[in-house]
Amino acid sequence: MTTDRLTENLLDALQAIPLIDPHSHIDPRQPVSRHLDDILGYHYYTELAHSVGMSHSPLKPDVPPHERVRAILQHADHLDNTVQYSWFVEIAREFLGWDGNGVSAADADRLIEAATRQFQAPDWEEQVFRRTNLQSIFLTNEFDDDLTGFDRRRYVPCLRTDTLVFHGDRPDVRQRLARVTGVEAGDEGSWRRALGRLFEKFVEHGAKACAISLPPDFAPTGPDQQPVFWMLAEFCRDFRLPFDLMIGVNRRVYENGVFQGQDLFDHRGSLLNYRRLFNAFADVTFCVSVLSSGMNQELVSHAWIFPNVVTMGHWWYSNVPAYIEPDLRARLQAVPKTKQIGYYSDAYKLEFVLPKYRMYRRCLARILADEFVRTHRLSEEQAIELGRLLLRGNVERIFGV
Amino acid sequence: MTTDRLTENLLDALQAIPLIDPHSHIDPRQPVSRHLDDILGYHYYTELAHSVGMSHSPLKPDVPPHERVRAILQHADHLDNTVQYSWFVEIAREFLGWDGNGVSAADADRLIEAATRQFQAPDWEEQVFRRTNLQSIFLTNEFDDDLTGFDRRRYVPCLRTDTLVFHGDRPDVRQRLARVTGVEAGDEGSWRRALGRLFEKFVEHGAKACAISLPPDFAPTGPDQQPVFWMLAEFCRDFRLPFDLMIGVNRRVYENGVFQGQDLFDHRGSLLNYRRLFNAFADVTFCVSVLSSGMNQELVSHAWIFPNVVTMGHWWYSNVPAYIEPDLRARLQAVPKTKQIGYYSDAYKLEFVLPKYRMYRRCLARILADEFVRTHRLSEEQAIELGRLLLRGNVERIFGV
Amino acid sequence: MTTDRLTENLLDALQAIPLIDPHSHIDPRQPVSRHLDDILGYHYYTELAHSVGMSHSPLKPDVPPHERVRAILQHADHLDNTVQYSWFVEIAREFLGWDGNGVSAADADRLIEAATRQFQAPDWEEQVFRRTNLQSIFLTNEFDDDLTGFDRRRYVPCLRTDTLVFHGDRPDVRQRLARVTGVEAGDEGSWRRALGRLFEKFVEHGAKACAISLPPDFAPTGPDQQPVFWMLAEFCRDFRLPFDLMIGVNRRVYENGVFQGQDLFDHRGSLLNYRRLFNAFADVTFCVSVLSSGMNQELVSHAWIFPNVVTMGHWWYSNVPAYIEPDLRARLQAVPKTKQIGYYSDAYKLEFVLPKYRMYRRCLARILADEFVRTHRLSEEQAIELGRLLLRGNVERIFGV
Repeated sequence: MTTDRLTENLLDALQAIPLIDPHSHIDPRQPVSRHLDDILGYHYYTELAHSVGMSHSPLKPDVPPHERVRAILQHADHLDNTVQYSWFVEIAREFLGWDGNGVSAADADRLIEAATRQFQAPDWEEQVFRRTNLQSIFLTNEFDDDLTGFDRRRYVPCLRTDTLVFHGDRPDVRQRLARVTGVEAGDEGSWRRALGRLFEKFVEHGAKACAISLPPDFAPTGPDQQPVFWMLAEFCRDFRLPFDLMIGVNRRVYENGVFQGQDLFDHRGSLLNYRRLFNAFADVTFCVSVLSSGMNQELVSHAWIFPNVVTMGHWWYSNVPAYIEPDLRARLQAVPKTKQIGYYSDAYKLEFVLPKYRMYRRCLARILADEFVRTHRLSEEQAIELGRLLLRGNVERIFGV
Repeated sequence: MTTDRLTENLLDALQAIPLIDPHSHIDPRQPVSRHLDDILGYHYYTELAHSVGMSHSPLKPDVPPHERVRAILQHADHLDNTVQYSWFVEIAREFLGWDGNGVSAADADRLIEAATRQFQAPDWEEQVFRRTNLQSIFLTNEFDDDLTGFDRRRYVPCLRTDTLVFHGDRPDVRQRLARVTGVEAGDEGSWRRALGRLFEKFVEHGAKACAISLPPDFAPTGPDQQPVFWMLAEFCRDFRLPFDLMIGVNRRVYENGVFQGQDLFDHRGSLLNYRRLFNAFADVTFCVSVLSSGMNQELVSHAWIFPNVVTMGHWWYSNVPAYIEPDLRARLQAVPKTKQIGYYSDAYKLEFVLPKYRMYRRCLARILADEFVRTHRLSEEQAIELGRLLLRGNVERIFGV
Repeated sequence: MTTDRLTENLLDALQAIPLIDPHSHIDPRQPVSRHLDDILGYHYYTELAHSVGMSHSPLKPDVPPHERVRAILQHADHLDNTVQYSWFVEIAREFLGWDGNGVSAADADRLIEAATRQFQAPDWEEQVFRRTNLQSIFLTNEFDDDLTGFDRRRYVPCLRTDTLVFHGDRPDVRQRLARVTGVEAGDEGSWRRALGRLFEKFVEHGAKACAISLPPDFAPTGPDQQPVFWMLAEFCRDFRLPFDLMIGVNRRVYENGVFQGQDLFDHRGSLLNYRRLFNAFADVTFCVSVLSSGMNQELVSHAWIFPNVVTMGHWWYSNVPAYIEPDLRARLQAVPKTKQIGYYSDAYKLEFVLPKYRMYRRCLARILADEFVRTHRLSEEQAIELGRLLLRGNVERIFGV
């Protein structure tokens, strides 16, 4: 993390590139925060506070937001070393006028006030877009989400399919599916009709990707084994939608964890499990995220060999500089530059796009400086162009935005 | 390993912190060396010398110690690149008045003499404690060890349970257990009574932890599968003892290896195997060491999510800077700082605490400098406090010493 | 990749050491290129170009070489970030008088011309040897290769055994084996006679190693399970040939990939699979390459413990600085220096030895500078000697060249 003039120059240039964020959990009707609780209620903070001793009580829905904020900040001094904490400090400094290098329990009231004041600005969403230098951001939509009523140049729909693939046999899911498609999905033919209508609807409403998160031992071996998943790949092909595969999450490993703070991974997953899928769908671009940094070399090698495999971002437990840096270095050295989607924020509120992307851009700037400019392989201008591809150019081309 | 002024300053400050070493194999009745053979007889040297061609003969018990030392040093020039060799040079320089940067076969006699002279000092144990800035050190006690006759403020007992869990069905083990507990362990009830008495005895005698080393494929799935192991966890809960899990060792892989130089690991282990245990014992603090650096990200993520999982040290095959640095960087970025036990020496003789901890502190100082101070996230003073937590503060709090 | 004076000095000294390259796919009767197509037809370029969209048509045998070159260079601007591309630029600069930092589609004709002119020099092979500072290079010979008609001081035969182990039951393989050995291999005894004759012939013709590439899940558990493989190990013992194990490749994962661009790996392999082999053949030196960087720590630990296990090079998907550097750092810290074969080129044409070794030596120089000289563990001269062992000394001793 040593800084130097060249790295700083590159970082400045990278920050000037307007972002297209290709994966988030933003609610386009509530994209920004209204209370500091919307920031600190992010599972990264609730789970870390819980991990150092906070009980579940402050997280109950009837607890007033400012009490929850106080409870979480009460634990800040146990976790102020983490990069997640540094995102919060960066949000406070960038958006709330905070001027310290840290925050503690004693700062809770002042921070709450500053946040409430700031977030009430009628143009707050605009301000966040502008200060973040954000142009547009992808959503994660359930198959029966309402895709109307928001600006689709800014908020790009994306069909999330976990529910269909892993819970397609549940009556409530089938009912919801019937409600939006008019088809009672049961046998292969009716599933195909239902999914076809879904894709039509999503594409009509500007969807630019299909996405799914998968457990480490998932192995798509063919239409007989995973019929719904396989059909989704077929529709991605037919509708020319990239298919985001987020590989490696085990759900509910920590059973008493906080909301969204129960999932972990198993480093023993392998992309070898996906060989039949990648071979069967040469025309589908698979944008692959891996949860375990230990799978990054497999990802690098698959993107190097398979024309239809693209590296995508640094996901969740791998989204810390200690893993971003080595993973990104390997990608930049061995994966064609047009096949790398550099980053996505995974954010639930827009305020997080800025600190997360800044963390990434610091890693990127340092690698560009050390591996490309200082070795005379690229000029500074060329290095910035390489960064632009990762931050934005490849997103535009691959997703067609 | 590049040094700079800031890193040096941090290193100096970290060296001034009195150590509490939470895991070793020290014999409290013979804690220091009496002959250079006690240093070079450490399995790190015998196995490395054997690995480059030394036969088993110099290791036979009837070989005079100075011949064994000569035989081992005879191979030094094959392995003087290793960090283990650098520990020896550091011991020679710090404790034996050696002033070279290396040692070779030709130095054997001079080193033996210097060691014999030095080790005869009547206050040698005191001297080593003082020069190492060591306050106290944990032991590894078999269940029938005599826990009396040594200073328990310095030498902290710890119940090692491998024998009970993996050889509890052997008649000799049951006899030893009966001898110390008065209980013939057979069915579940008698095992429970025997273990209960063991825990009582150990806690009465100042034990601060229960510990076990486990093979990579161990999967504690419940009391029916691993009844003794599960009971140990229950007693850790009832007696409020942390449970040190040292995960990943395969015993006797190299069948003709030297004593303690036969064990290896298999990088395919996963902490997912421990999900039931971690969920079942929310009140037990599990201090987890992993033998494979490839499991470090799982450890980081489990310690980030599970309140009862704590990272502990850099074990054996991961105890080289090439693995300590990336593993530690990830922990410092993503695990709450109060849930990290930085290091332990694993030493068999006290003289090794100094060079091993110094190696660790160099890694720590460099990361604190680059990731925290130079990025303006912490002041130098705050960085030192963070180091103090890892080196000592968390040991005090978690083990209650 | 930051350069500094000390690293540059070390690099200069390392470049002055004449190389013995212990693994390649050179054809000793066509060791150098005759057309730029011989360079850009290397699978690294065809597969990367294919990965960014090049069809199979330019690779058909009836396509004129210059058209193929143009087609591949047409895609250069998609992959000019890769280290493989940098090898090509280095070849152009070193051997073709190119003076730019990059090449693009527009340069195709000029490059083809320069290459054709250069490669026609009657002493081109000599020139490449001299400029590369190459002394000799190992071959990869099928069991029925003709081992006569080339200079065996330069081109060292090596018996490659994949075909025998994995396709020994195919009639055509048995016929070929019968042709060269005079033995119809069928039962154990006849296989043993056939292999014995093969080894005799190879050793008579100066072979210095037996080699095989193995899938990630290969587990040599004994003569009953893998009879041919086990016999090979026995003959290596009897004929005192090192056995190169190249562990981890899955063949034909990408079914429609270009020639030699279809293979991938699975990071879940483990050296634990080899425990019986390593124990059974104490007198055979196993020179082990791993395809997955995730297996490097296992390799380091096995070479540290097993006298007969030696680390060898950085293979294929691990042959990029992002993996070479951490893998090499760990080896230098924990494996006796006499048990490390630093590198091999794996080249198909001699022109690649220079850029690949230079990449490796840059990594080596940087680690020697930072970890050994700057920490005062070695003088510059000693660090160069350490480098010399890895680059050449260990190859001479272990393979007896």
